[in-house]
Amino acid sequence: MTGRALMNGTARLLLGVILAGTSLAAAADMLPSWRDTQTRQAIVDFVVATTTPTSASYVPPAERIAVFDNDGTLWAEQPAYFQLLFAIDRVREMAPQHPEWKDKEPFKSVLAGDMAAVAAGGEHAILELVMATHAGNTSAEFEAIVKDWLARARHPQTNRPFEQMIYQPMRELLDYLRANGFKTFIVSGGGVEFMRAFAERVYGIPPEQVIGSSIRTKYEVRDGEPVIVRLPELDFIDDKDGKPVGIHKYIGRRPVFAFGNSDGDFQMLEWTTAGDGARLGLLVHHTDAEREYAYDRDSSIGRLARGLDEAGERGWIVVDMKRDWARVFPDAR
Amino acid sequence: MTGRALMNGTARLLLGVILAGTSLAAAADMLPSWRDTQTRQAIVDFVVATTTPTSASYVPPAERIAVFDNDGTLWAEQPAYFQLLFAIDRVREMAPQHPEWKDKEPFKSVLAGDMAAVAAGGEHAILELVMATHAGNTSAEFEAIVKDWLARARHPQTNRPFEQMIYQPMRELLDYLRANGFKTFIVSGGGVEFMRAFAERVYGIPPEQVIGSSIRTKYEVRDGEPVIVRLPELDFIDDKDGKPVGIHKYIGRRPVFAFGNSDGDFQMLEWTTAGDGARLGLLVHHTDAEREYAYDRDSSIGRLARGLDEAGERGWIVVDMKRDWARVFPDAR
Repeated sequence: MTGRALMNGTARLLLGVILAGTSLAAAADMLPSWRDTQTRQAIVDFVVATTTPTSASYVPPAERIAVFDNDGTLWAEQPAYFQLLFAIDRVREMAPQHPEWKDKEPFKSVLAGDMAAVAAGGEHAILELVMATHAGNTSAEFEAIVKDWLARARHPQTNRPFEQMIYQPMRELLDYLRANGFKTFIVSGGGVEFMRAFAERVYGIPPEQVIGSSIRTKYEVRDGEPVIVRLPELDFIDDKDGKPVGIHKYIGRRPVFAFGNSDGDFQMLEWTTAGDGARLGLLVHHTDAEREYAYDRDSSIGRLARGLDEAGERGWIVVDMKRDWARVFPDAR
Repeated sequence: MTGRALMNGTARLLLGVILAGTSLAAAADMLPSWRDTQTRQAIVDFVVATTTPTSASYVPPAERIAVFDNDGTLWAEQPAYFQLLFAIDRVREMAPQHPEWKDKEPFKSVLAGDMAAVAAGGEHAILELVMATHAGNTSAEFEAIVKDWLARARHPQTNRPFEQMIYQPMRELLDYLRANGFKTFIVSGGGVEFMRAFAERVYGIPPEQVIGSSIRTKYEVRDGEPVIVRLPELDFIDDKDGKPVGIHKYIGRRPVFAFGNSDGDFQMLEWTTAGDGARLGLLVHHTDAEREYAYDRDSSIGRLARGLDEAGERGWIVVDMKRDWARVFPDAR
């Protein structure tokens, strides 16, 4: 054994002792915004069972894939998806360059502030707004626009920056899972390039671990400068049945841990928990009208009905925000 | 400072010293199949420059994205793409269930062993073969079929298993980059699910870091069992202009290191090396008719012409297999 190999072995042993100590202590230390309820205990039990080498439920590090929905799971989604609020702000900012919007729906209603009329336009209206505000530029330009908006815009009801509308317990959970060797992914119906503009800074999730809905792009060399151009054509909708398809397409391996909040996440949890061995599926139930919002079966945003009906028989955990979370947002009660 | 924090700090310091030592020593130790040429030196210089915190070219770990083509870059591609050889074997195996193939091109020619006639059918014929042999089953079934084929099939000229037709110097390079904090990705025109069946075992590249061409899939629950079904429709072609598009779509961040071998990789290298800061683009030049194959401008497989013409002015490194590699395949000269 050479000197270096010996030193290496010693350090590895020392590090192993420290990591084992950390991992056992971590549960309470790393999840301070989770109350000491059965929900937190179930999460910790799962992590301990899947990361303890002698456990029957042990999962090798490479297979520790954890997937999270974004809207309503990692950050709030009321009174409207934040990306829609972004699109509306963009329509207002871009209106001077588009005089034709004054007479054209859904832009006309957006500019008049008539959100009921926009909503009445349904999916088609939303799609028109998204294409007009999310396409036509390069990926670098779009990223800069989103970052600029996030730095300026405020939530219409709390007046907080949107990056302060993320759920502190979920941020702690992401850290806790990563500290235990899990690789954390976002799998969201939201636009992938919109989310990538903040996911790394805010959630510690790098762009290559963000999966979302997308529009087509093309590669072009403009005056010797290569760019990725965003086209006004849908490429992929990462919602409902699309979530397991997206997981398979981007990750290529079935997750062992899935966390959502609406029926749009049903198939993601179904696909995840139908795998062999230890699996955990969880749903955030928005039960806290005082600190956040209370909605489920009758909400047009984040509707949760089938998930509530079937969670029990499927062994999924319903996280009761009011009961299980000691704190909702960062730097807030 | 608590006892644990102190211990933690000590271990981290110790580990830091060891890792720094390893990294400096690693160049020669970790790349034994690379001869001590300017090529190897350029790779090592790049890695040292981008990973030394005090260097002007320092790249933070999260941005150390390295992308590799597969066919002709990580493993051989002559006398035909190995995935095409797989498709041909599948046609033969599936023929009893498809009596109509006896009279239908390109299947008729495949079954007659007339590869010239198959080739004459061009891209359309290849696409027909791929759809007939790669779609219609579930992702789990397809993975099992590929793994079974890889375990049995032999290269038609060397009689080696295909997994022994990988380039040993490239495997060492992948390890060397990862030991220096780089995240290694495959970005290949090959089928993503075909490559994912062996990339982790053979290259140490997990499925979520394999980007390739794909067919569409759909999610289905069959008798209570969720499956991903492979459909006979193209989804994405990850070649030429498609490579930067695929990189942007799957990784969402511009790589700093790109390694290819043909003009199909041109745009990948162009996109990578046009970024700010330190970047490295490399091309394997197949110059070794004795140990492997010698081909470039006139080859229908892995054609390399524009890359050779422009490598100099673009600062890309052309790796001369005959000159730069001490060994080509594992367990061979």
